[in-house]
Amino acid sequence: MAGNSSWHVKASQPVHYEVRLCHRVFDVDRTDLLDAGCPGDGRAPRRFVVVDEAVDRLYGADLRQYLDHHHVTHEIMVVKSGEVRKEIDVVLRFVERLDHFGIDRRREPVIVVGGGVVMDIVGLAASLYRRGTPFVRVPTTLVGLVDAGVGVKTGVNFNGHKNQLGTYAAAKLTLLDPGFLSTLSRRHISNGLAEILKVGLIKDEALFGLLERHGRLVLDEHFQGLSAEGDSAATAILQAAISGMLEELEPNLWEETLERSMDYGHTFSPSVEMLGLPSMLHGEAVCLDMALSTALAYGRGLMDEDECGRVFAVMSDLGLPTWSPLHTPEVLMQALHATVRRRDGQQRLPLPVGIGKNLFVNDVRDEELVSAIELQREMALRGSLEVA
Amino acid sequence: MAGNSSWHVKASQPVHYEVRLCHRVFDVDRTDLLDAGCPGDGRAPRRFVVVDEAVDRLYGADLRQYLDHHHVTHEIMVVKSGEVRKEIDVVLRFVERLDHFGIDRRREPVIVVGGGVVMDIVGLAASLYRRGTPFVRVPTTLVGLVDAGVGVKTGVNFNGHKNQLGTYAAAKLTLLDPGFLSTLSRRHISNGLAEILKVGLIKDEALFGLLERHGRLVLDEHFQGLSAEGDSAATAILQAAISGMLEELEPNLWEETLERSMDYGHTFSPSVEMLGLPSMLHGEAVCLDMALSTALAYGRGLMDEDECGRVFAVMSDLGLPTWSPLHTPEVLMQALHATVRRRDGQQRLPLPVGIGKNLFVNDVRDEELVSAIELQREMALRGSLEVA
Repeated sequence: MAGNSSWHVKASQPVHYEVRLCHRVFDVDRTDLLDAGCPGDGRAPRRFVVVDEAVDRLYGADLRQYLDHHHVTHEIMVVKSGEVRKEIDVVLRFVERLDHFGIDRRREPVIVVGGGVVMDIVGLAASLYRRGTPFVRVPTTLVGLVDAGVGVKTGVNFNGHKNQLGTYAAAKLTLLDPGFLSTLSRRHISNGLAEILKVGLIKDEALFGLLERHGRLVLDEHFQGLSAEGDSAATAILQAAISGMLEELEPNLWEETLERSMDYGHTFSPSVEMLGLPSMLHGEAVCLDMALSTALAYGRGLMDEDECGRVFAVMSDLGLPTWSPLHTPEVLMQALHATVRRRDGQQRLPLPVGIGKNLFVNDVRDEELVSAIELQREMALRGSLEVA
Repeated sequence: MAGNSSWHVKASQPVHYEVRLCHRVFDVDRTDLLDAGCPGDGRAPRRFVVVDEAVDRLYGADLRQYLDHHHVTHEIMVVKSGEVRKEIDVVLRFVERLDHFGIDRRREPVIVVGGGVVMDIVGLAASLYRRGTPFVRVPTTLVGLVDAGVGVKTGVNFNGHKNQLGTYAAAKLTLLDPGFLSTLSRRHISNGLAEILKVGLIKDEALFGLLERHGRLVLDEHFQGLSAEGDSAATAILQAAISGMLEELEPNLWEETLERSMDYGHTFSPSVEMLGLPSMLHGEAVCLDMALSTALAYGRGLMDEDECGRVFAVMSDLGLPTWSPLHTPEVLMQALHATVRRRDGQQRLPLPVGIGKNLFVNDVRDEELVSAIELQREMALRGSLEVA
C-alpha cells in the first residue's frame, strides 16, 4: 500500500463552573442545591447524594428534610472519611451504587456533601462514570471550602502515593456554607487555615496581615462571626483566600505549567503526609512544608529574621505544627525526589520572597536541605532565630 | 457572617493530537515511535511499553530490536487481550508496574501496541496516572486502525456494562501501520470492516460503493495490496474511513452533543455485545445493530427494498453476521432503555436515510421494534425482501 498521510485533530474543551457562597444550604427555602440539574420532562427530580459519615450524623436529618420538601427521589450513600480510605475500591463501590440507582447522563448531578477526601473520591467516580457525570459539591470542612472545593482535581491514593490516580473534573457548582464549620473540630479549622496561610504567604500580604491580627480569633470562633471583629475578619479572610486561590487556578486549570505557586507547601508534604497517616492532617503536612521552605528561603537571603519569626508565630497562632520528627533528611530527600518526577524532572520549588511574594528554584542540594531542616527545628523549638 | 458571593471560573482546554499512517513502524530507520517524547537532558530515553500478548508473539522481537537499536531504556509489559478482561483491575496492575518503572510526568510517553481493548485500558490508565500521562498508540487490528485508534475515548467494562468507566484522553500520536493486518485473522478483518461500513452507510456513499465493489477483495488480501486492484482499494478505503471518522469526531470530541451519527450501530449493540462475550466481537455486534436499524429504516420508508438488499449483501460480503439469536425483543428493548439513559433521556437513534445519509429519531416504540426484529431476521435468512 502506497502513500503516507497524517491527520491533525484540534479541538478545545470549554469549562465553566461556579463557586457560590451559600448560607444555610439545607434551608428548605433555598433552591441552590438543586440548581445545577434539570427537573426533566415533568418528572420528579432524582438525586444520588453522597455524605460523609460525620456530616450525616450532624446534618443528615436536615438534608433528608430538604430533599423530601422538594419532592426529590433520592438515595443517600454514607461513606467513611479519613485519608486512609481514599482508595480506588471506595470509588468503585460508589459507582456500583450509583449505577443501581440509575441517573440520566447529564441532567441529574450527583451531590456530594463532606470534606476534601469525600469530594475527591466522588469527583473521581463521577468523572469516570460514563466518562463524566455532572456533580455538585457542598464542602463541610475549612480545607474543603477554601481548597479542595474550589479547584478541579479529583483523586485517590495508590501504591503508597498521594492522589496518584485522578482526573481534572470541575463540579458544575460548589456551594460554600461556612455554617458547617460550627461543628468542625478546632484541629480541622487549623487544618484549613494552613491553606489560607499559604495564599497569604505567596501572594497576598494583606491576607497574611489579617491572619496575624485575627487568625486566632476566627479559629476560636470557628468562622461563625460570634463577635463583630470575628465576623468581619471571617468574611474578609474567606473571600481573600477563595479569590486568591481561584486567581492562581483559573489560568492553569490543567496544570500545563508545572510551576505553580499554589504548590507552595506541597513539595515535601505529599510524602510526609502519607507517612503520617492516619493521624496527620493535610494542612498539618502543608504547614510543616511551609516552615521548611521558610527556613530554605532564610538560608538564601530571601527572607529576613523578622519575617521568619512572624511566619512561625502565625503558624503557632493558627494551631499548626512547625516541626515534626518525620522531617528527617532521608524522608525529605526522598520526598523531593518523588516531586521532581511529578514535576517532570525539575524541582520547581516555590520559595517565599519576604511575605506575599515567591519565586521558583531548581537547585536545592542535599547539604542545603539538611541545614534547612536543622534550622526549621531550631526555629520551631525556640520560637525565634538564635542560630549562627 | 454577612454577604453573598459567587465566582465563575472559565477556561478552555486545548487538545491537539496526530494520527499518522506509518508503514513498517518497527523498522529501525524510522523514528516515529519515539517522536512524541523528549530525550531529556542528554539522558537515554526511557519508555514503558504495553503490548498485547498475541502481538508480542508475532512482533515482540522486532519491537525489542527497535528499542535496543535506539538505546531506549525500556520495560515491556505483556497483557492478555479479549474484551472479557477489559476490567479495572488490569488498569491498576498496569499503573503499579508503570509506577515501579518510573517515568517523567510529561516527557516519557507510555507506548501501547495492540488492539482496541488494550488501547482502551492503557489509555484509561495513562489518563488517570498523575491525572494524565502522555501516551502513544500503535493499533494492530483493523478496528484499532479505523476506530479505537483515532478517537479519544478510553474505558473499561464495569458492573456488566460496556465502557462504563472511562475518560476522554487523546493519545499525543497514533501510528497506523496496516502491515499488522497481514497476521490478523480473517474474522478480525471483518470485525474492523463493520466500523468502516458504518462510515459509508451514514455519510459516504462513495465509501459504500468501494466496499460493494472491493470489500471482499480487501478482506481476502487482509489490506496488504496483493493485487493492483486490492492495493488501490485498500488505500482508498482506509483513507476514506479514517477521514470520515475524524470529521465526525473533531467537532464533538467530548460528546457534548449526544446526537452522534457515529453512534449508528451502537444503540442496541452494547448490551448485545456484553451478552455475546467472550465469543462475539465488537464489530459483529455493531453489524447486527446496523442490520436492525436498516430494518427500522425500511419500516419507516427511509430506505427502499433495493437499498436494504444492497446493505445486507455488503454485510455478507464482508463476512459479517446480519442475524443473531440474541436479537430478542426482551434483549433489545432492554438495550434501548439502557442507551436512553446514556443519551440523557432520549433515544437519539441514528437511522440511515438511503445510503450515505442519516437522521435521528426518538419515538421508536416496542411494537415497531418487534416488527423490525422480525423483518431483520427474514432479510438475513432469505437474503432478500420477501415480507409483506
